[in-house]
Amino acid sequence: MNVFVIGIGLIGGSLVKDIKSTQENVTIYGIDTNDGHLTEAISLGVIDKKASYKDLPSADMVIVSIPVDVMVKELPVILDAVHEDCVVFDVGSTKSMICKVLEHHPKRRNFLACHPIAGTEFSGPSAAINNLFKDKTNIICEVELTAFKLQERALKVFQAIGMRIRYMNPVAHDKHIAYVSHLSHISSFMLGKTVIEKEKNERDIFDMAGSGFESTVRLAKSSPAMWTPIFKQNKENVVETLEEYIQNLTAFKELLLKDDYEGIYNEMNNTNKIKGILKRNTVKQEIE
Amino acid sequence: MNVFVIGIGLIGGSLVKDIKSTQENVTIYGIDTNDGHLTEAISLGVIDKKASYKDLPSADMVIVSIPVDVMVKELPVILDAVHEDCVVFDVGSTKSMICKVLEHHPKRRNFLACHPIAGTEFSGPSAAINNLFKDKTNIICEVELTAFKLQERALKVFQAIGMRIRYMNPVAHDKHIAYVSHLSHISSFMLGKTVIEKEKNERDIFDMAGSGFESTVRLAKSSPAMWTPIFKQNKENVVETLEEYIQNLTAFKELLLKDDYEGIYNEMNNTNKIKGILKRNTVKQEIE
Repeated sequence: MNVFVIGIGLIGGSLVKDIKSTQENVTIYGIDTNDGHLTEAISLGVIDKKASYKDLPSADMVIVSIPVDVMVKELPVILDAVHEDCVVFDVGSTKSMICKVLEHHPKRRNFLACHPIAGTEFSGPSAAINNLFKDKTNIICEVELTAFKLQERALKVFQAIGMRIRYMNPVAHDKHIAYVSHLSHISSFMLGKTVIEKEKNERDIFDMAGSGFESTVRLAKSSPAMWTPIFKQNKENVVETLEEYIQNLTAFKELLLKDDYEGIYNEMNNTNKIKGILKRNTVKQEIE
Repeated sequence: MNVFVIGIGLIGGSLVKDIKSTQENVTIYGIDTNDGHLTEAISLGVIDKKASYKDLPSADMVIVSIPVDVMVKELPVILDAVHEDCVVFDVGSTKSMICKVLEHHPKRRNFLACHPIAGTEFSGPSAAINNLFKDKTNIICEVELTAFKLQERALKVFQAIGMRIRYMNPVAHDKHIAYVSHLSHISSFMLGKTVIEKEKNERDIFDMAGSGFESTVRLAKSSPAMWTPIFKQNKENVVETLEEYIQNLTAFKELLLKDDYEGIYNEMNNTNKIKGILKRNTVKQEIE
């Protein structure tokens, strides 16, 4: 099987590493606008060979892992280039615009809209790691629009690397993911900003920051080049989550100003139930 | 050495576990309003013996690890009870009010105001773990008000369990810690609240939440009984941090509404420097 990965970073790189180690007779071809990344990916063993769009007709599977604004421009071109029996899937954090732009593409049945929910705050080929997707959710949108035997080929790969599959429509995906992922990134970036602005003496941050602060600002290390187009494509949902978050923070501040400590206790106590909701995930994380 | 721990949870319990394993001839006495916690602490090997305030005259060292509102009431009583050669230290996340309340106490020289910056989101005797304080900062306030030989006794213990010491005045401590700790907790609790309110179907949170969301809401599992009095005692600073945080989030939302994606990119790119600031800590965490 010839597997092409377009954009060799954390997600694309980790995917092909796992594919290489779980499938037989696989050759991994890498395409990237950054030639240094290609060379690095070969030396790290992430890909087998450099390739370009003109090699796409030989692909059996194409993974498109590039920023979502580039994705909407490149996916139609990529689909034009592949043969009839090739499955192309994306890994973007937004789904509506990507599905919309391919709605009437003659090779729409060759495309599977995916969002594997996994990652770290690192980027580039060196961020590619094995087992990133084990027990993680892969959300697939508009599965009914993909040719059945191409769905099967992709699912076989997802299953082998340990992913759980969940089917959703792209509009619901973008709405939910704004809450459980996009908002977390903004809250983290703005927390980092607030602290950096205030603590001009970086030594103070370094000395006084406990593991709690590190945990809440971890996502502020994420790539702006990747996240800016995500926020742009999911603007409406992200603005809504931000408004609700700001409203909750303002209400908490008002409780403090009114010295309503019973109210503050209750706010925190009610939110403690997140323990139960995330419990299974947490246990899993600790074992890993 | 007779070491008393008043309040046997995450911090007090972890401290005495480390003291027991690094000092010779130590007996750990536990005092707690919750008798179940005392029994549990003995069975877990966190303390050697149950005790009460009437046993305090035999103490060489007393660790007071109780919520900060109870702390300001109990510390004067505890100091009244100990003998002249005993060092009493607290571990509270606020320092101004605690130092203020003991300002004119006849045994002020027996007291050392401490804030070991370490923890997890768990609580109770079962949360006590070894090596929690290794390479972590312990902030000591108004060190000059503590008798020199009692400072020495406490520092010897802190050094043995691997803590780095930093001296600060209580007002500066409370101002800085509001940014690097208290605000993180509120941002996390309110993020958890925003998502729980929206995602009535908990299955959606569970399936779609990646490690990023878990990281940012981890602190929302913290104890409301411990955190409510911290926010109360540090109200002025916490309100200030909240106002700046809300302002930054609102500015980010405005950039989105104006479609100023260059501005959004720059906001994130400028905050990326948190990588460098937290780098040494992060490396350490990964090694642990």
